[in-house]
Amino acid sequence: MEAEWIEKLRKRPGTERIGDDAALLGDTLVTVDMLTEGVDFLCTEAAPEWIGRKALAVNLSDIAAMAGVPESFVCAVALPKQEEQNEHPVGVELAERLYAGMEPLIQQYGLVLAGGDTNTWHGGLVISVTMLGRATSRGVWRRSGGKPGDMLFVTGPLGGSILRKQFFFEPRILEALFLNENYDIHAAMDISDGLSLDLNRLATESNVGALLDEAAIPISTDALELARTTGRPPLTHALSDGEDFELLLAVPPEEGKKWLDQQPLQERFGVTLFAIGHLMAHAGLRITDPDGNPQPLKAEGFLH
Amino acid sequence: MEAEWIEKLRKRPGTERIGDDAALLGDTLVTVDMLTEGVDFLCTEAAPEWIGRKALAVNLSDIAAMAGVPESFVCAVALPKQEEQNEHPVGVELAERLYAGMEPLIQQYGLVLAGGDTNTWHGGLVISVTMLGRATSRGVWRRSGGKPGDMLFVTGPLGGSILRKQFFFEPRILEALFLNENYDIHAAMDISDGLSLDLNRLATESNVGALLDEAAIPISTDALELARTTGRPPLTHALSDGEDFELLLAVPPEEGKKWLDQQPLQERFGVTLFAIGHLMAHAGLRITDPDGNPQPLKAEGFLH
Repeated sequence: MEAEWIEKLRKRPGTERIGDDAALLGDTLVTVDMLTEGVDFLCTEAAPEWIGRKALAVNLSDIAAMAGVPESFVCAVALPKQEEQNEHPVGVELAERLYAGMEPLIQQYGLVLAGGDTNTWHGGLVISVTMLGRATSRGVWRRSGGKPGDMLFVTGPLGGSILRKQFFFEPRILEALFLNENYDIHAAMDISDGLSLDLNRLATESNVGALLDEAAIPISTDALELARTTGRPPLTHALSDGEDFELLLAVPPEEGKKWLDQQPLQERFGVTLFAIGHLMAHAGLRITDPDGNPQPLKAEGFLH
Repeated sequence: MEAEWIEKLRKRPGTERIGDDAALLGDTLVTVDMLTEGVDFLCTEAAPEWIGRKALAVNLSDIAAMAGVPESFVCAVALPKQEEQNEHPVGVELAERLYAGMEPLIQQYGLVLAGGDTNTWHGGLVISVTMLGRATSRGVWRRSGGKPGDMLFVTGPLGGSILRKQFFFEPRILEALFLNENYDIHAAMDISDGLSLDLNRLATESNVGALLDEAAIPISTDALELARTTGRPPLTHALSDGEDFELLLAVPPEEGKKWLDQQPLQERFGVTLFAIGHLMAHAGLRITDPDGNPQPLKAEGFLH
């Protein structure tokens, strides 16, 4: 539904170019993400600290997707009121534990909490973070800059994030700044709703298609574990599970070949760059099957 | 509860000075307000357009309280899913009608919608707006600059906003910019939670007390109307009802006397400045009774 709504908004006057992970106003980046109980987390399964961390980390990932420097954020919460049936923390205790989960990221990235709005209501937990960041002198990455022939990379194995990684992923802030400083990247985004769905967005914004190499998609151990209970192939999880929050990067082939040789994030950050395919002049998503033949690939993932 | 939480946050490292209606980062102002169903509006009583307008207007009022220029905003919503019992709009229709309510303010103030996050869930409507603005070369107003002897002004009659004004108030953006350009104002805020409660906050931030003149408090016609059904005195409504979103201003007596003579907002904006009392060295809130004797005044209002 968000896609439909965004399309309508795009046509309105007074609307900033929407379609990247964050909006650029002058050299200020701004992005907002709201997490809701029952959709983005279950209070029966996630500690408040995990939820607070996730609310901040998803916004950091949006800043990373634009190769920006995160600076400050505001946070609004709707906290469940104390009711007889509450088994989970509410009120001030809940607010404090949400904040405690944010604190390591605040320290790590030197963030400023610039304000908040704390509400209680007869409803589930909602937490909304707006993050402000700054573009560096190298400019920001957009989804729209991809060119046919660009090599596609991801910053880590994909799939099964629902088991753990959705709460504990590391936003790729430092990796993005390092890559932007040292290489030419044509287009980028973070994988929040699933590789095939997000790649389709990047390709569409760039007016190109994409061809993935099935054998090259890095499948996480969590995707393997999850596949044992869902009965779906691990590859399907890697292609369509949401909330990996790895970067998806489109780079000119000469840069891409350097990356394969040098693995520039390996020593410094312990992060492997995986080459997973190419952008193509031919519109649409395709994936090579085990025999090397391109097959159509459906853009699937987590739609809010 | 928010006050308690803010006090705790204030002591944390990495926290921007909290206590004004918006935070100032460089010359960027940022503020966030979240509205929740059942607390800030009832879907049985308020059209979606009213709710959308209010979500934007309360943030504009925070920027006005700092005498800033509003520039852009992001909006996150949690929309109720279509269920059999829904009598009110949901999904895309609800999102569009919320936006339609914002559009006149977007046009009026030349705002840019810089991004959004649209979620659906099995819960009530939540809408959170983060507004960015800019300080002018005249600087921003804070709550903390009040001095003993300052005259206190409000920009309109107070009380009973629950009847209508909570949805249809005009944020005092232009009035604030005009006053800041032409006069020296020591301290300011918007009245969002009730005059006595908010004045107590301003006085506390300024390390002073305040004395109100009972006979000078401007009582709105809505307060008179509401008093007939609540049985409470109209003055009580004017002192403690929330969501008036008028400005509360503390100005040096020489400026205040000019205001009484000239009524600088009258001709240009049709707005009367009401002198309602003074800041005092003596801590605490007091109000003069009909005989002119100061009596203690309890800080009461709408606590989230």
